Amino acid sequence: MSEHGVLLEIAYDGTAYAGWAPQRETRTVHSVVTGAIHALDPRASLPRGTSRTDAGVHADGQLATFDATLVIPPRGWVLALNQHLPDDVCVRRARAVAPGFNPRFAARGKRYRYRVLLDRIRDPRWTNRAWRIGWPLDLERLARAARHFEGTHDFAAFRSSHDPRSDTVRTMTRVAVEAGEDPRIVGIVVEGSSFLYNMVRIMVGTLMDVARGKLSEDAVVLALAGKSRALAGTTAPAHGLTLEHVDVELPEGAGEPWPR
Amino acid sequence: MSEHGVLLEIAYDGTAYAGWAPQRETRTVHSVVTGAIHALDPRASLPRGTSRTDAGVHADGQLATFDATLVIPPRGWVLALNQHLPDDVCVRRARAVAPGFNPRFAARGKRYRYRVLLDRIRDPRWTNRAWRIGWPLDLERLARAARHFEGTHDFAAFRSSHDPRSDTVRTMTRVAVEAGEDPRIVGIVVEGSSFLYNMVRIMVGTLMDVARGKLSEDAVVLALAGKSRALAGTTAPAHGLTLEHVDVELPEGAGEPWPR
Repeated sequence: MSEHGVLLEIAYDGTAYAGWAPQRETRTVHSVVTGAIHALDPRASLPRGTSRTDAGVHADGQLATFDATLVIPPRGWVLALNQHLPDDVCVRRARAVAPGFNPRFAARGKRYRYRVLLDRIRDPRWTNRAWRIGWPLDLERLARAARHFEGTHDFAAFRSSHDPRSDTVRTMTRVAVEAGEDPRIVGIVVEGSSFLYNMVRIMVGTLMDVARGKLSEDAVVLALAGKSRALAGTTAPAHGLTLEHVDVELPEGAGEPWPR
Repeated sequence: MSEHGVLLEIAYDGTAYAGWAPQRETRTVHSVVTGAIHALDPRASLPRGTSRTDAGVHADGQLATFDATLVIPPRGWVLALNQHLPDDVCVRRARAVAPGFNPRFAARGKRYRYRVLLDRIRDPRWTNRAWRIGWPLDLERLARAARHFEGTHDFAAFRSSHDPRSDTVRTMTRVAVEAGEDPRIVGIVVEGSSFLYNMVRIMVGTLMDVARGKLSEDAVVLALAGKSRALAGTTAPAHGLTLEHVDVELPEGAGEPWPR
């Protein structure tokens, strides 16, 4: 049986999901995407994603591939899968790739954005999309501390104790504070090659502790050097985080570029 | 029994509500705000709002007053009511006013914002917040047509046939196209003294028909002059609309200005 690899770019509001990754008897983004694929092509493979986003984390550009048995052009997959997906999950683009292609191992980099809402009162518009902070932050101090993450460092202090990996050296190409869509929103953009478990959330939580004066301005440098989770700050809540983009290296002749 | 007037500024995501206004056996924003007030002060009056937003319409600044029997400072009402409100409804500010004060008759003007998402594919981020339009729009033409609404006109063509009012002359102080929070979002800001039923949604629907070339560029002028609903365009869906601000004239000595 001939198979046809399909690469999907998927956006979702993670509020109602227990994250991306498959879990027995739990509704995950993977499970609803699988349901949509199998509604159209029951013999297709399971989708393989690039990033195991946590429960409540959102995505603008999660990437996943699957192997189809039906021959449908990429634009057709976009339209057909979206007919079978709930409102909070959507395939944004699709393209043809080699069967069996696993985008996880082809990911060259990822960009996350963490949103903080600076407001003493909650705001229904941002409830599921930003971490609300009701105390004053020193944004200059925040921006200076963020820059300390840039470059290649051992991020052993910035990962969940559940992360089993022994290699904890990662390269951050950009960690910056940006104005948000709303004057009260602060965006923290984190771009890097790859990430440890909970890494962005612990980085952001530490930056917030620095920005409110709970940790010293050199806390980031000290935690990177000391390599102990106890030196870093709190873990920022999941709902402020969005996986914005995954940069994937496709083999030559992988098919047409992303069609729209 | 002594009563104390309280003016509330209320924000909500209208997705889960059958609008603001009370309706028998239906969950409205009014009913959950009433529930929160009576949980704290069972003998308080029902809240009186300024704007009867439709099902699915959002608000950043709906205004409502009620008469309390308890003596609680405004900031205390904000914190206490928010403890009793669901995530998608929030009191943003409160201030003291005279008992019996009805903000509906004191409203000098209102500002609405309608969001259009220009995208061929749906986006979970904007599902409940913007009207997605998948065809090309002429934004210059849109901006020119919007300006024709400014000033004092008879808006008889721009109201639902269910609107019973005989006086259909209204003054729009500003109708303008603005860039949105996202490069794909177009905002249509409508500011005026008061509005007829469905008026903003019919104005926006007509502008979209002009911007896509379905109606001629002078359609707004012709519909204002012709005063017939048939000359205007479609009614834009409710979920793109937000009541941003109500400008209310408070009697002198109405108490402290809005505390934060």
